[in-house]
Amino acid sequence: MTRKAAIIGGGVIGGGWAARFLLNGWDVAVFDPDPEAQRKIGEVLSNARAALPALSDVPMPPEGRLSFSGSIADAVEGAEYIQESVSERLDLKHRVFAQIQQSSHGVPIGSSTSGFKPSELQEGAADPSVIFVAHPFNPVYLLPLAEVVPSVKSDAKLIENAKEILRQIGMYPLHIRKEIEAHIADRLLEVVWREALWLVKDGIATTEEIDNAIRYGFGLRWAQMGLFETYRIAGGEAGMKHFLAQFGPCLTWPWTRLTDVPEYDDDLVDLIAGQSDAQSGAWSIRELERIRDANLVAMMRALKQQDWGAGALLKAHDLRLRDAGGAAPADGIAADDPVLTLSQTVPLDWLDYNGHMNESRYLEAFASATDRFMKLIGCDAEYIAAGGSYFTVESHLRHLDEAHVGDVITVHTRLLAGEGRKMHLFHTMRAGEREVATGEHFLLHVNLETRRPSDPGPQVAEALARIAAAQSGLPRPEGAGRAVGQRP
Amino acid sequence: MTRKAAIIGGGVIGGGWAARFLLNGWDVAVFDPDPEAQRKIGEVLSNARAALPALSDVPMPPEGRLSFSGSIADAVEGAEYIQESVSERLDLKHRVFAQIQQSSHGVPIGSSTSGFKPSELQEGAADPSVIFVAHPFNPVYLLPLAEVVPSVKSDAKLIENAKEILRQIGMYPLHIRKEIEAHIADRLLEVVWREALWLVKDGIATTEEIDNAIRYGFGLRWAQMGLFETYRIAGGEAGMKHFLAQFGPCLTWPWTRLTDVPEYDDDLVDLIAGQSDAQSGAWSIRELERIRDANLVAMMRALKQQDWGAGALLKAHDLRLRDAGGAAPADGIAADDPVLTLSQTVPLDWLDYNGHMNESRYLEAFASATDRFMKLIGCDAEYIAAGGSYFTVESHLRHLDEAHVGDVITVHTRLLAGEGRKMHLFHTMRAGEREVATGEHFLLHVNLETRRPSDPGPQVAEALARIAAAQSGLPRPEGAGRAVGQRP
Repeated sequence: MTRKAAIIGGGVIGGGWAARFLLNGWDVAVFDPDPEAQRKIGEVLSNARAALPALSDVPMPPEGRLSFSGSIADAVEGAEYIQESVSERLDLKHRVFAQIQQSSHGVPIGSSTSGFKPSELQEGAADPSVIFVAHPFNPVYLLPLAEVVPSVKSDAKLIENAKEILRQIGMYPLHIRKEIEAHIADRLLEVVWREALWLVKDGIATTEEIDNAIRYGFGLRWAQMGLFETYRIAGGEAGMKHFLAQFGPCLTWPWTRLTDVPEYDDDLVDLIAGQSDAQSGAWSIRELERIRDANLVAMMRALKQQDWGAGALLKAHDLRLRDAGGAAPADGIAADDPVLTLSQTVPLDWLDYNGHMNESRYLEAFASATDRFMKLIGCDAEYIAAGGSYFTVESHLRHLDEAHVGDVITVHTRLLAGEGRKMHLFHTMRAGEREVATGEHFLLHVNLETRRPSDPGPQVAEALARIAAAQSGLPRPEGAGRAVGQRP
Repeated sequence: MTRKAAIIGGGVIGGGWAARFLLNGWDVAVFDPDPEAQRKIGEVLSNARAALPALSDVPMPPEGRLSFSGSIADAVEGAEYIQESVSERLDLKHRVFAQIQQSSHGVPIGSSTSGFKPSELQEGAADPSVIFVAHPFNPVYLLPLAEVVPSVKSDAKLIENAKEILRQIGMYPLHIRKEIEAHIADRLLEVVWREALWLVKDGIATTEEIDNAIRYGFGLRWAQMGLFETYRIAGGEAGMKHFLAQFGPCLTWPWTRLTDVPEYDDDLVDLIAGQSDAQSGAWSIRELERIRDANLVAMMRALKQQDWGAGALLKAHDLRLRDAGGAAPADGIAADDPVLTLSQTVPLDWLDYNGHMNESRYLEAFASATDRFMKLIGCDAEYIAAGGSYFTVESHLRHLDEAHVGDVITVHTRLLAGEGRKMHLFHTMRAGEREVATGEHFLLHVNLETRRPSDPGPQVAEALARIAAAQSGLPRPEGAGRAVGQRP
């Protein structure tokens, strides 16, 4: 049965939460009295649909159902998880919690608050034990971080349950054991923001120069390692203590304007807004959102190939989705039909200048399908670590139709021959129902030590023989055995 | 004639500078009295060789010559650029500048100082006008940012010259017009560092939790847009002023520990070093460096495909390298030999679980070679914008040998047929002298509006015909016309 989440407050943050739940298969009920809420959430959801599914290399569950409720009571009815993202006013949040708790009992209520501590949120609540901080980062549908902050009054089991739900929608719940204003990340953002305002106000740098100082330097580092791991490396073989000894004394230097708060007057606002227009005004906010999302998807997919940072989280989430079954590729290897070896969304960064999926990405998808087929016959990570694998010797690709960003593509795989060292595969790729490409591949089993052809292990050989026999009755696929440029 | 840079001080930073100059074709003389300097620079250079050339999709110039000088006078002899990276002590830097200026006149002297202002560096110098701050970020061979800070005594023309040199070695000189302690980026790093120390000291979070709060959240954002552009988006269609109005009042909230400096005692050092060991101790510093570099190369290449941020800088640098001629692919299109259409280094992130370049990367390289060939016949960005292009219909790849990370691969392209809408290409890829793969491709010219086949423009048709005629005498390449699995 589909699970339901209630989203109270439907701005950019609430919309991002809604998108994450929906695209991970949850039904979502939104309550927001703003007459613009449906439009706003629609825009966030449309961005999310273009970006989020493409982070995954396995099929996402079918999208959940989105509804808009006329009351908080309706929204939370039957919900297993409730997320509050209303404006950052404590009295308003207290009123919302009171209304939620008139209808909902024992269900986790996460708050998107940037600044309030959970003990403040819980004040005066009918059941303070279920209210906690679940602070996400924009765009909520892409960035995995959610700071989860309980108070001493929180129900520890409920918190663990809520963290598990966040993991199920692809997030990384960072459990903060001791509550503090603004949690962790926003405290770091806050100090940078203050210092940056001084730099602008004092005429040292423009908003664009500050942004460049970030994204051409430490911003790149921080996307994959944080502050401490980066500095650990800077300490060299002598390690963290050496770094601390070098850098520690600077702490008392009077570099930064820590003790001052810049006066936040109209002049400063105009200065910053004007510089920001000069820097980014050529793009609309919608365009900037799409650029940002394409960048994030591309970088996160790059980190996924490195199995590191946010990319390692994505890999783990894919495994979770695959294990969840349902929409995952069939694991039965005695299939007498072509085997489903890939089902994924075309990512934003697979586009080329011709406005469609780039040719090399077809082979990337076919290579993933081959990997999946290898796993199905027992040539998995463990087998490869023991020294055997398959190398592709030859490939032939036909492009029959175009695939575009956001298309869900599937690959079905025929085993044309599989005996001894040889494996001859034929992949068919579809975008929806349309056949868009085929890939024919000849592989040889090799010994990874000698890099020479070798016979596969008996279990792999057996699995291959079984599939070859089961599929032997199928007609030869159209296009198999074709040479480039050959007349049909 | 090869240009020469002098690197004074050969630690991690000096070594990074040396690597950047060398790999961009400059000769480099290093002076460092540390007996370990050669080993240390050798290690940085070996990391840089594995990472930096792979950022480029065009050939890098031949690596320059590295030498170690016995004196500052020898090192700076004949140098066009001098970079000082000695320890962060002003008296030491003053002594180094004095020695440099005994032998060098009118040559830019950049300092890697994190904290000192150029006017401080210039104090007592024989010629203050050539001394300025050129502050890089580790790893210097990958991160493009160099903060260039002159003082009022600086020679404006010399500063522009120095900035141009930095661009030539692939850096982004961020010109800071008004000097300030710690420039820009390190002021931002400093405030984050202080706040992070408090979080650790107060037991709110461990070093690993803080790192995760960064790299799963705003770190990803900052790798591609900075602080202000990110917040501009958060303001939505109402823009930056709306964001400022929302966020401004928080500035006076007492969130962060701005006014305090944590006491930097042994307990704090032990706490941080211990947590850092628990977080990252499973890897040696060498391993962490390689992981970091592979992550950075993968992310920066991903951003390059998006033509954004550090990726846009890489693209511009490639164009500069290509225009610099020498090692660039031949632009002559009347070639009667196969045309050099690609020469690049196999990037770190092209490796797969079999320990060699992944099959899909072969097609990525062949697709780049096809793009280059298209440009050569006049099917360039302008032509494509006007509505014509080529779509690949069919490809055949043969894998003859393995290519590995760091190999310089070249592609030479034969035009087997080119008339009407049809273009039939045969690419041969070599790693050094070894033939590692071939790619045979059949393309059709299309109208990008209708997405249907169409005749190319007359100039493109003419260029194709000319090359086809010039290459008609060449023997048919081995492997052309092969089908997958066909007997030889």
